[in-house]
Amino acid sequence: MIYHRVALIGLGLIASSMAHAMRQYRLAGTIVGHAQSAETRAIARELFCDEVFATPAEAVKGADLVVLCTPVGAMAEIARAIAPHLAPGATVTDVGSVKGAVVEAVAPHMPEGVHFIPGHPIAGTEHSGPRSGFATLFQNRWWLLTPLEGADPAATARLRALCEGMGANVDEMDVAHHDLVLAVTSHTPHLIAYTMVGVAEHMRRVSNSEVIKYSAGGFRDLTRIAASDPVMWRDVFLTNKDAVLDILGRFTEELFVLQRAIRMGDGEHLHAYFTRTRAIRRGIIEAGQDTSAPDFGRIAPPGEGKG
Amino acid sequence: MIYHRVALIGLGLIASSMAHAMRQYRLAGTIVGHAQSAETRAIARELFCDEVFATPAEAVKGADLVVLCTPVGAMAEIARAIAPHLAPGATVTDVGSVKGAVVEAVAPHMPEGVHFIPGHPIAGTEHSGPRSGFATLFQNRWWLLTPLEGADPAATARLRALCEGMGANVDEMDVAHHDLVLAVTSHTPHLIAYTMVGVAEHMRRVSNSEVIKYSAGGFRDLTRIAASDPVMWRDVFLTNKDAVLDILGRFTEELFVLQRAIRMGDGEHLHAYFTRTRAIRRGIIEAGQDTSAPDFGRIAPPGEGKG
Repeated sequence: MIYHRVALIGLGLIASSMAHAMRQYRLAGTIVGHAQSAETRAIARELFCDEVFATPAEAVKGADLVVLCTPVGAMAEIARAIAPHLAPGATVTDVGSVKGAVVEAVAPHMPEGVHFIPGHPIAGTEHSGPRSGFATLFQNRWWLLTPLEGADPAATARLRALCEGMGANVDEMDVAHHDLVLAVTSHTPHLIAYTMVGVAEHMRRVSNSEVIKYSAGGFRDLTRIAASDPVMWRDVFLTNKDAVLDILGRFTEELFVLQRAIRMGDGEHLHAYFTRTRAIRRGIIEAGQDTSAPDFGRIAPPGEGKG
Repeated sequence: MIYHRVALIGLGLIASSMAHAMRQYRLAGTIVGHAQSAETRAIARELFCDEVFATPAEAVKGADLVVLCTPVGAMAEIARAIAPHLAPGATVTDVGSVKGAVVEAVAPHMPEGVHFIPGHPIAGTEHSGPRSGFATLFQNRWWLLTPLEGADPAATARLRALCEGMGANVDEMDVAHHDLVLAVTSHTPHLIAYTMVGVAEHMRRVSNSEVIKYSAGGFRDLTRIAASDPVMWRDVFLTNKDAVLDILGRFTEELFVLQRAIRMGDGEHLHAYFTRTRAIRRGIIEAGQDTSAPDFGRIAPPGEGKG
């Protein structure tokens, strides 16, 4: 057991997966939670929380670990509300997809003697809510910690042990670098996926039904990440504005160069570009971050016909 | 048996999958093939072709169905080469991802009495080559036929029966509409995926190793389609230029509107946009064109922990 009492604030995909994982691998004594909605609290009580509370202040009492699992936009208010009720020596972490804005929102409220260690598990699915969690979500995924200057090494090591206990690999980096890396590997990819789905939806000459029927040519891949939780993603773009705008600028430049190559009929440029990008896919598979099965394994592999 | 002798010209993912499917469902008597590379021909001979030939002209002799499965850029030359050797009454089809350019390249060479019926199976994986095919690739996927004016209804019906025999659903549409629909559902999504992967590769401040390690936040999804065959995709963009440039223009407009909302901090706009795009994902799942399993089923579903 790594923590005696863990309080999860916000009970969606990440919190419910953490609860299932902590229980399965016996990492926490008691797991309690808070969610705004009474319905969510009832589901959490039934599926993965020992106790649930109607306010975050009640939930954190006596907890040696508090995990903020709400959208980033809600964290400042929660930090203010829980601050007077945090146990001395407790660790507070979060699972937000941006770190700079979380530090700004949360750190000023943290009392002396409480360890605030921001974190971010790079794991998820397109599903959300308290029923969507499962114990293996973090297996072989990276969990980034961004400890602030002067952070207590023992508190960080303990949090790291929890993440590793749930199956994750842990890296530490600074807040600004985290937000840039994630703008490249997560935030901008989501934005362009949302945009492409929006374009398809607006096309008058191509009906929605055609877009849906003929989606297996690539489009459907983008619709998965464009089905992620809208509130969470709104907050990501509002709070990681600078890094996302930087990467979007680069993206548009590259796209214009390719667009020009198409317009000019420059096949050599296109071919060279499309060849280079294959190497990254291979790297991701070799690093264990994606399956090598064709089509993510969603179709029958060679030799295993279903027909 | 629907055709007595089928000649596959170009022996990659689609041709090899067709051969496996035609054999498994007994749709063809003899299956022969041609590929430029002697190595590919040897693999095809071993895995799925009754006979292979060093030239397309030899391969088509006596065939009642000829399927052009090469990149679109190679089809004009092949059409010219096979024309004098086609059997009277034979059907010639293709599997190219664009149809206007294929019709321009192939139709002028087709002799009187040969039925040229362009086609396009909307199915594939990111793998390519003669070893990548499997019999179930076309199961529940759409196969679009774009018969030209005056096409023989019996010849079209026979080709349709073959596609359906391999498990596909068949729709007919005109050539220009096909190219526009596919620009939305396949070509532009591939281009933006290639672009995003290219951006990630160019970033100096974010190392390739970080891009790979932390790819599970969305980026890895794009790398799958950006790992598709570079020659095929070069030809798609060179030959469906107008429709792709049209859709790219719309994409950039939409992206700029979202970019502006991020810059201005317009959370309502972002939230409304991200909410609308969820419906298309639901539609695709209901239409049987994607799995409802979280993360394409590539991770363990809830309740089935592997840990």
